[in-house]
Amino acid sequence: MQTLSTYSIYFEKEIGNYRFPISPGNLYQPLDYFLQLGGKRIRPLLTLMASEMFGLPKENALQASMAIELFHNFSLIHDDIMDKAPLRRGKQTVHLKWNEDIAILSGDVLLIKAYQALAKQEVRHIPALLDMFNQTAVEVCEGQQMDMDFESRDQVAIEAYIEMIRLKTSVLLGCALAFGAIVSDASEKDRTLIYEFGQNLGIAFQIQDDILDLYGDPEKFGKQIGGDVIANKKTLLLLKALELAQHNPETNVEEMLLIEDQVLKIETAKSMFDSLGVLAFAREQMTFYQNKALSALKEISVSSERKKTLIELSEYLFQREV
Amino acid sequence: MQTLSTYSIYFEKEIGNYRFPISPGNLYQPLDYFLQLGGKRIRPLLTLMASEMFGLPKENALQASMAIELFHNFSLIHDDIMDKAPLRRGKQTVHLKWNEDIAILSGDVLLIKAYQALAKQEVRHIPALLDMFNQTAVEVCEGQQMDMDFESRDQVAIEAYIEMIRLKTSVLLGCALAFGAIVSDASEKDRTLIYEFGQNLGIAFQIQDDILDLYGDPEKFGKQIGGDVIANKKTLLLLKALELAQHNPETNVEEMLLIEDQVLKIETAKSMFDSLGVLAFAREQMTFYQNKALSALKEISVSSERKKTLIELSEYLFQREV
Repeated sequence: MQTLSTYSIYFEKEIGNYRFPISPGNLYQPLDYFLQLGGKRIRPLLTLMASEMFGLPKENALQASMAIELFHNFSLIHDDIMDKAPLRRGKQTVHLKWNEDIAILSGDVLLIKAYQALAKQEVRHIPALLDMFNQTAVEVCEGQQMDMDFESRDQVAIEAYIEMIRLKTSVLLGCALAFGAIVSDASEKDRTLIYEFGQNLGIAFQIQDDILDLYGDPEKFGKQIGGDVIANKKTLLLLKALELAQHNPETNVEEMLLIEDQVLKIETAKSMFDSLGVLAFAREQMTFYQNKALSALKEISVSSERKKTLIELSEYLFQREV
Repeated sequence: MQTLSTYSIYFEKEIGNYRFPISPGNLYQPLDYFLQLGGKRIRPLLTLMASEMFGLPKENALQASMAIELFHNFSLIHDDIMDKAPLRRGKQTVHLKWNEDIAILSGDVLLIKAYQALAKQEVRHIPALLDMFNQTAVEVCEGQQMDMDFESRDQVAIEAYIEMIRLKTSVLLGCALAFGAIVSDASEKDRTLIYEFGQNLGIAFQIQDDILDLYGDPEKFGKQIGGDVIANKKTLLLLKALELAQHNPETNVEEMLLIEDQVLKIETAKSMFDSLGVLAFAREQMTFYQNKALSALKEISVSSERKKTLIELSEYLFQREV
């Protein structure tokens, strides 16, 4: 069994060697720049790990893992335009460093490059990879649209929120793992199980992100603590608080949303969320999806020994304790 | 042999039946709207016609033709954002009727839907269709980037301009026809020839468009005559004029570019282009690519009888006489 860092070093090297054409420079330079911003590359590692778990050397799954990473970066470039984000991984976003038109068009070509990577896998696997990829890519767009729609709504049901994060971020983790299953000719059942593992792991991870934003260790979290509260972002915590407050006339969440002083706002939100039991609820939800993920992994018909790297990865993802 | 209108009626009916999901409405309603704006649907007809020319009923090439039309519409939605176009086929563009974010994301999902249509063809044809489609889609983006780059340049060589229109618009015509060849198991040689036919037809058509913009019959052209001149657009005519004027010190093209009065500007451009021989040059170029297209079609190993629909289509495209 290989360790996490073996996969990571391998993929970093391969993506470092990935070359876009020289010309037109305004189309491809932004992509060279963006891919080199780095990131954890969790998604492509999932493809490589799943492939080896099912018995195929990771090298034979490289193009499928590349497709996943290119797609992920496409979605980030376009999302950054829509979110008007100035920074990505501490550096200027493409639409600011160049301009919006270039960000749109480079993003487009990056999505096509993802399909081009996928098309380099063995011919007999291409139709299945393509179906999985198309479905996932459509869902990611639907999730992004739901996220934008939710911003302008007063209330969002918890189920709708979970469905949004499932589409926007979690299905791609499922797809990355299913790619590993497809290229290594795993059974249909195992492919579904590994997809379920990834999807539920993704939901749990997003919920953890919502929790850490307010309750995380500032040293470890790497972002400003309370950023979501300050921005009135509709996280699982806020949505649950709004839901519970309907039956608690003494708790006025709307009032908290209007507080301008950042420190006071964060303190008020925290104590409100604590008294409503919102933190406990979010933790339960996270554990629920973590368990769902692990039980799908357990059912997969390969030895526990072979599952160790994926378990190691899940533990790594959830080591940012709350 | 079926006539042009048989194909047209068939495809209109099929695309009229094409349904996007209901939700999220903000993602899919713009696409329902945009696809219903119509257009000549030349590209998907090329797929259907090529398929029948090579002996496969058009119904079996429907999904491939749909992929071409969906892709074309994706590129229009995103180009309209970049060109800040207020109207498309006389109706509001998506980025104005909704907003830019929605136009970006609906465009993205439409590109993916094109791949989804392609994936519905027979499994054994998918890898070849995918390769052809990926290559073409990348080239279309490269052409669009070149077009944007040219806007801010003083001089553009004629060869570079032809290469830009080849990439931006003509390769998709080649791809549409090659799709028909792939799904009907035509030989590699015939596939290349039909691609060449489409690509050169496309270049000739774009050159005709440049000519008609200034010299067309206002009744037939459907757009404002001289629009390109008024906007100082770098058409084949203007680029050739700039090139020739370098050796004609008495002709000051730059001065014409600065004229503000529209009628005077158009008159000045016309007489300048006439005296430089620019119109004659453009016509020669158009004929050159038309002939290249027709000689590729001639070489294809099917009876002349079977080629009649495609010849009818080319005649239809060039009936807007100049």
